[in-house]
Amino acid sequence: MKYSFDGPLSGIIPPLVTPLKDNETLDVESLEHLIEHLITGGVHGLFILGTTGEEQSLSYRIRKQMIEETCRINKGRLPVLVCVTDTSIVESINLAHIAADCGASGVVSAPPYYFATGQPELAQFYEELVPQLPLPVFLYNMPSHVKVSFAPQTVHRIAQNPQVKGFKDSSANAVYFQSVMYTMKDRPDFAMLMGPEEITGESVLLGGHGGINGGANMFPELYVNMYNAAKSGNLKEVLRLQQYIMQISSTIYTVGQHGSSYLKGLKCALSLLGVIKDDFVASPFYKFNAPEREKIRLALEALPIENGKLML
Amino acid sequence: MKYSFDGPLSGIIPPLVTPLKDNETLDVESLEHLIEHLITGGVHGLFILGTTGEEQSLSYRIRKQMIEETCRINKGRLPVLVCVTDTSIVESINLAHIAADCGASGVVSAPPYYFATGQPELAQFYEELVPQLPLPVFLYNMPSHVKVSFAPQTVHRIAQNPQVKGFKDSSANAVYFQSVMYTMKDRPDFAMLMGPEEITGESVLLGGHGGINGGANMFPELYVNMYNAAKSGNLKEVLRLQQYIMQISSTIYTVGQHGSSYLKGLKCALSLLGVIKDDFVASPFYKFNAPEREKIRLALEALPIENGKLML
Amino acid sequence: MKYSFDGPLSGIIPPLVTPLKDNETLDVESLEHLIEHLITGGVHGLFILGTTGEEQSLSYRIRKQMIEETCRINKGRLPVLVCVTDTSIVESINLAHIAADCGASGVVSAPPYYFATGQPELAQFYEELVPQLPLPVFLYNMPSHVKVSFAPQTVHRIAQNPQVKGFKDSSANAVYFQSVMYTMKDRPDFAMLMGPEEITGESVLLGGHGGINGGANMFPELYVNMYNAAKSGNLKEVLRLQQYIMQISSTIYTVGQHGSSYLKGLKCALSLLGVIKDDFVASPFYKFNAPEREKIRLALEALPIENGKLML
Amino acid sequence: MKYSFDGPLSGIIPPLVTPLKDNETLDVESLEHLIEHLITGGVHGLFILGTTGEEQSLSYRIRKQMIEETCRINKGRLPVLVCVTDTSIVESINLAHIAADCGASGVVSAPPYYFATGQPELAQFYEELVPQLPLPVFLYNMPSHVKVSFAPQTVHRIAQNPQVKGFKDSSANAVYFQSVMYTMKDRPDFAMLMGPEEITGESVLLGGHGGINGGANMFPELYVNMYNAAKSGNLKEVLRLQQYIMQISSTIYTVGQHGSSYLKGLKCALSLLGVIKDDFVASPFYKFNAPEREKIRLALEALPIENGKLML
Repeated sequence: MKYSFDGPLSGIIPPLVTPLKDNETLDVESLEHLIEHLITGGVHGLFILGTTGEEQSLSYRIRKQMIEETCRINKGRLPVLVCVTDTSIVESINLAHIAADCGASGVVSAPPYYFATGQPELAQFYEELVPQLPLPVFLYNMPSHVKVSFAPQTVHRIAQNPQVKGFKDSSANAVYFQSVMYTMKDRPDFAMLMGPEEITGESVLLGGHGGINGGANMFPELYVNMYNAAKSGNLKEVLRLQQYIMQISSTIYTVGQHGSSYLKGLKCALSLLGVIKDDFVASPFYKFNAPEREKIRLALEALPIENGKLML
Repeated sequence: MKYSFDGPLSGIIPPLVTPLKDNETLDVESLEHLIEHLITGGVHGLFILGTTGEEQSLSYRIRKQMIEETCRINKGRLPVLVCVTDTSIVESINLAHIAADCGASGVVSAPPYYFATGQPELAQFYEELVPQLPLPVFLYNMPSHVKVSFAPQTVHRIAQNPQVKGFKDSSANAVYFQSVMYTMKDRPDFAMLMGPEEITGESVLLGGHGGINGGANMFPELYVNMYNAAKSGNLKEVLRLQQYIMQISSTIYTVGQHGSSYLKGLKCALSLLGVIKDDFVASPFYKFNAPEREKIRLALEALPIENGKLML
Repeated sequence: MKYSFDGPLSGIIPPLVTPLKDNETLDVESLEHLIEHLITGGVHGLFILGTTGEEQSLSYRIRKQMIEETCRINKGRLPVLVCVTDTSIVESINLAHIAADCGASGVVSAPPYYFATGQPELAQFYEELVPQLPLPVFLYNMPSHVKVSFAPQTVHRIAQNPQVKGFKDSSANAVYFQSVMYTMKDRPDFAMLMGPEEITGESVLLGGHGGINGGANMFPELYVNMYNAAKSGNLKEVLRLQQYIMQISSTIYTVGQHGSSYLKGLKCALSLLGVIKDDFVASPFYKFNAPEREKIRLALEALPIENGKLML
Repeated sequence: MKYSFDGPLSGIIPPLVTPLKDNETLDVESLEHLIEHLITGGVHGLFILGTTGEEQSLSYRIRKQMIEETCRINKGRLPVLVCVTDTSIVESINLAHIAADCGASGVVSAPPYYFATGQPELAQFYEELVPQLPLPVFLYNMPSHVKVSFAPQTVHRIAQNPQVKGFKDSSANAVYFQSVMYTMKDRPDFAMLMGPEEITGESVLLGGHGGINGGANMFPELYVNMYNAAKSGNLKEVLRLQQYIMQISSTIYTVGQHGSSYLKGLKCALSLLGVIKDDFVASPFYKFNAPEREKIRLALEALPIENGKLML
C-alpha cells in the first residue's frame, strides 16, 4: 500500500524495537511476531529504525535487512515509516532509496548528530536533502540525542517543500510542541506526532495527530485506545488510560541508572511477554542482568495482564 | 484571609511583575493598578516575587516592600503566595517570616541556585528548611534558572511533611509534570500547578490544578477562561482560547534575542496596555528600546483588544 | 595597606573557606587561625566570599562579619579581595561599600546567576555596576555555577574601564583562558588569575599571573612554591610539585558523589589538619559523615605531612 | 612502516582535513599536495577521519577511499592513525580492518555518539570493541560532539588492555587532561595527546606527548616548533610561538557564528594558501561565502607569510 497522505498521518505508529540475536543478527521470527502483534493491536502504522529501533547501533547491513523484512511481513497492510537519520547525507539518501524500493510509505529524519548545526545550516541541509529523498518526509526532533532542536521557524521553512508531511517531537517539551503546531497552523495536512507516550493523550486533545509511542510494542491496544479517547474528546477515558501509561512509564522504564533504562526495560518486558524471543540490546548498551530482569517481571506482574494482553 | 488549603490550591494565580521606577524604587501606584486589574479579571490568587517578579534582581528592601504593599492592597481578597527562593537558607526563612507577618497565605521555594545540589542534598535541604517556614509551602521547579530539577521521588519525600501543599513546574517538560503528578497521586490535596501558559490548558485537562501564568498580568480573563474551560472539559473552548494564548506567546514573548525576551516583552506590553506605568526591568536586564517596543505595539494591535481588554 | 595595583595582582591568593559553627555563626577563632596559617605560608593575598567561601549560602549578616573580621585580622598585611557576586545589583554595591569601609583592596564579581544574560546584557550590566563600586574590580568567570561565560570580547569591552584590574577564570577551559589572555594582551597591568589549582602551574608558565587555589587553605607553601617555580621557569620543580597537587585533587576532592565533593573534602581536611575547628558546611550542603571523613583522613595520611605541613 | 609504539606516540600528528570536490568526490590531488606539505613541514604522524576530517559527514565509500589514498601517498613515511569512531560497533570494526589492510599504524575511537552511555556501559563497550580491532587503539575524548566524557578511571580501566596506547583529549578542559595524565602515570608508554592547539604548548611542558592540532594543516612548522620548544623546555620560544597560534585561533577560526567556524575557516584558509584546491565542506556544513572568505584572506594577510609559509 502506498499511503496517500491526503490528510495528516494520524494515530499510533509504534517505533518498533529491532529484535536481535546478537550485534550482527536480526531475529526475523521475532520481528514477524512483533508485527502481527502490532497489527492485531490496531496500530495505524509501523515506524522502524528510530531511537527505539536502535538504528544508530546497527550495521548498515542490518538496517537494510530490517527495512526489507518489515515491508515483506507487513504486506502493505499499514504505512511503514523508515528512519534514515544519519550524519552523512549520502548514507541517508541511500537508506531512503532502499526504503522506497521496499515499498515504505515515508522516511523520518532527525538532524545530523555529530556536528551540531546552527538553524540556518539546519534549514539549508534539509533544503539539500529533501529533494533527493524518494518518499514523503517527516522531521524528527530529538534534541537529547542529536544536540540541536528545530526552531519552529526552521520547521516552517523546511516544510515549504510539500514533500515534508509531518513532524515528530521527542523533546518532551510541550510548550515547544505547541509552538511548532501553532507555527504550522496554515498546513492542515501536516502531521504533528508526539514521541513520549506519557503526553500523547494531552497532545491529541489539543490538536496533535497521534503518537510514536514505544510502549505500544508491548500493549498496542492501550495506546490506540488512548488515541481514540483523546481524538473523540472522551476525557474520562483519557484519564483512566493515562494511569496505566504512567504506571508503565514509572516502573518498566526506570530500572537501571543510565539513559538506557527505557530501551533495556522495554526490550526486557517484550521478551518476558513473549513478543520477542531475546532482549539482546545492541552495543554500546547491554541487556539487563537477572536482578534488573526480576524488577521488570514484578512491574509486569503489577499490571492487569492476561495472556499477554493488558485488560483495559 | 488565611487560605484554608482544604483542597488543593486551584485556578489561575498570576506571577505578578514587579512594577519599578528604577532598581531601587517600587512603583506602588502601578502595583495597586495591577492588583485591581487582576482581581477584576477573576484570578484565583496572587503570586509575587517569582521569576516574572524578578525576585533575584531586587534588593531585600524592595522584596520586603513588595510583600507588604501586595498584602496591603489585596486586603485579604485573594490568597497571596510569596516566592522566598534564595541561595541562603537564613535569608529564605527571613523572607518567609515577613510574608507571614503581612498575612500571606503561603510561600514558594525553588532550590538554591548557585550551588547545584544532588537529589539527597536537595531533599535534606528541604527537610531542614520547611519546618522553619511559618506558612504552607509550594515547591517550585525551575531547572533552566536553578540548574537542578526535583526528581519526582524527591518531591514525594519532601512532601511527606504535610506543610508542603503543592508544586509549580516551570520546566515545560510535560512528561516530567505527568511523572510528578503520578508520583503524588496519593495526595489529593496536593496542588499541581503549571508555569508555562502554553500548556496550562492541557495540564488541567489531565488533572492539573491550575496555572501560574505570566500572560495573566495582561489579560487575566483569557487564562481564567482557559482554566474554567479545561476544568469543565469544554474542549472546543480550550482549543479556541489556545489560539490566543499561542499568538501572545509567539509574538509578545519572542522579540529580542536573549532569554530575557519574555520578561521584557511582558513588561513592555503591560506598559503599552496601561496596566503599569513604566516597563523598567531590573538589572541585569534592560527594557526594550524603541524598535523592540514598536514590535510589541504591533503584536498587541494584532489582538482583538478593546479598552485594554481582550475580546474573547 | 591599600594595594597599589601598579602591576597586575600576582601570586597565590587563596579563596578562604568560611569557618562556621552553624548556618548563622561564624567561627572567628578558626578564621584567625586560618589567616595566620596562610600568611605564614607565604600567600600573596586573601580572597574571601568566593565559591570556596560559600558566599551565596551565607546570610548577609555573616557576609558582612566575614569581611570585617578578615580585614581586622589581616591588619593590612596582605591585599584582601572580597567577592560581591549577587543577583541584585543593589546588594552587590552594598557589599562592595562594606568591603571598602573595612579596608579591602578590591572586589571580585561573577555575573548575576539566576537570570542568564546574553553578552550585550552582560557588558551593559558591568558598565552600570563598575562605576558604582568603590574599589578596583576583578571579573570572575564561573560558568558551571552562573550559567554564562564572559566572551573574551566582553571582558575586553568591560575592561575599557581602567577600574577593572583583572580576571579570574574557574572554567577549567585552558583554551578559553588563553583566548582571554590574548584578547587582553594590550593591558600588561591586567591580572590573569587561574581558579583551578591543577592548572595554575601551566597557566603561569604561559604568562598567567597566579592562582586563586582552594588547596592553599590546607598547604599554602605548595601552591606558593608552584607559583614561584612556574614564574621562574623551573620546569623540573613545576613537574615535581604538580604530582602533589594532583594527588590532593584526585583524593581529597573526589570523595562523595555530588558537585559538592570539593567543598566538603576541603573543609573536612582542614578540620583534620587542625586549621579550622569544625567542618560545618552551610546549607544546602552538609558536611561529611564518618565514612567519608575516614576517606579524607586516609588521603591526608598518604601525603608526606609533618606537624600539619606538607614536607616538600 | 609499522610504527613500533615502543615509547608513547609523540609530536605533532595533524588531523587532516578531507579535501573534497563535492559530497561524493574526494579530491585526491589536493590530498597528495596536503600530505607532502605536512611531511615537508616535519610532522610526526598523520591522523585522518577525525572531527577536522569530517569523518561523520562522509559516506563509507569516501572514508574507505580516504584511508587507501592516504596510506598510498604516505608510503610508510609516517605513522597513520585512522579515526574509526562510529555509532555501530560493527561499522567501527569494519573500518579498522580497512585501516589495517592499508597499512595504518593505529586507530582512534571516540565513544558512540547517538546514545549517551554511562561510564560502566562505556567501559564495557570498549572491553568488547578493542579486542576486535586489528591495530593499536587511541581513545578520543570529544564531549562537545559525543555528549559523554571518559572519566579518568574509565580510561584507566579500558587501558588495562595493553593494546590501548594513548588518549587524545579535545575537551579543552586542562584540569581534566591533568587528571587523566595523573591517573595513567603508571603507564609511561601511554601517549597523552592534546587536541586544541591553543594549549598544546602548555600540555607538553607539563608532560604531555604532543598535539593533534588542526592548524598544522596550514602551518605545520609552527606547531612542530612549538612541540620542540615545549619538549626542550624553551619557555621563551614557547611564549613567542604561542602568539602566532593565538592569532590564528582568534582570527581564522572565529569567522561566522556557528560551531562550524573552525572547520569552515580552516578549509577556506587552506584553499587560499593553495594547500588544497577547493574549500568544499561536506553537508550539513557549507563553505564560506565571499564576505567570510574575504575575512579569512585578511586574517592570513595579517600573518607574516611568504610563499605560503609562516616566517617564524
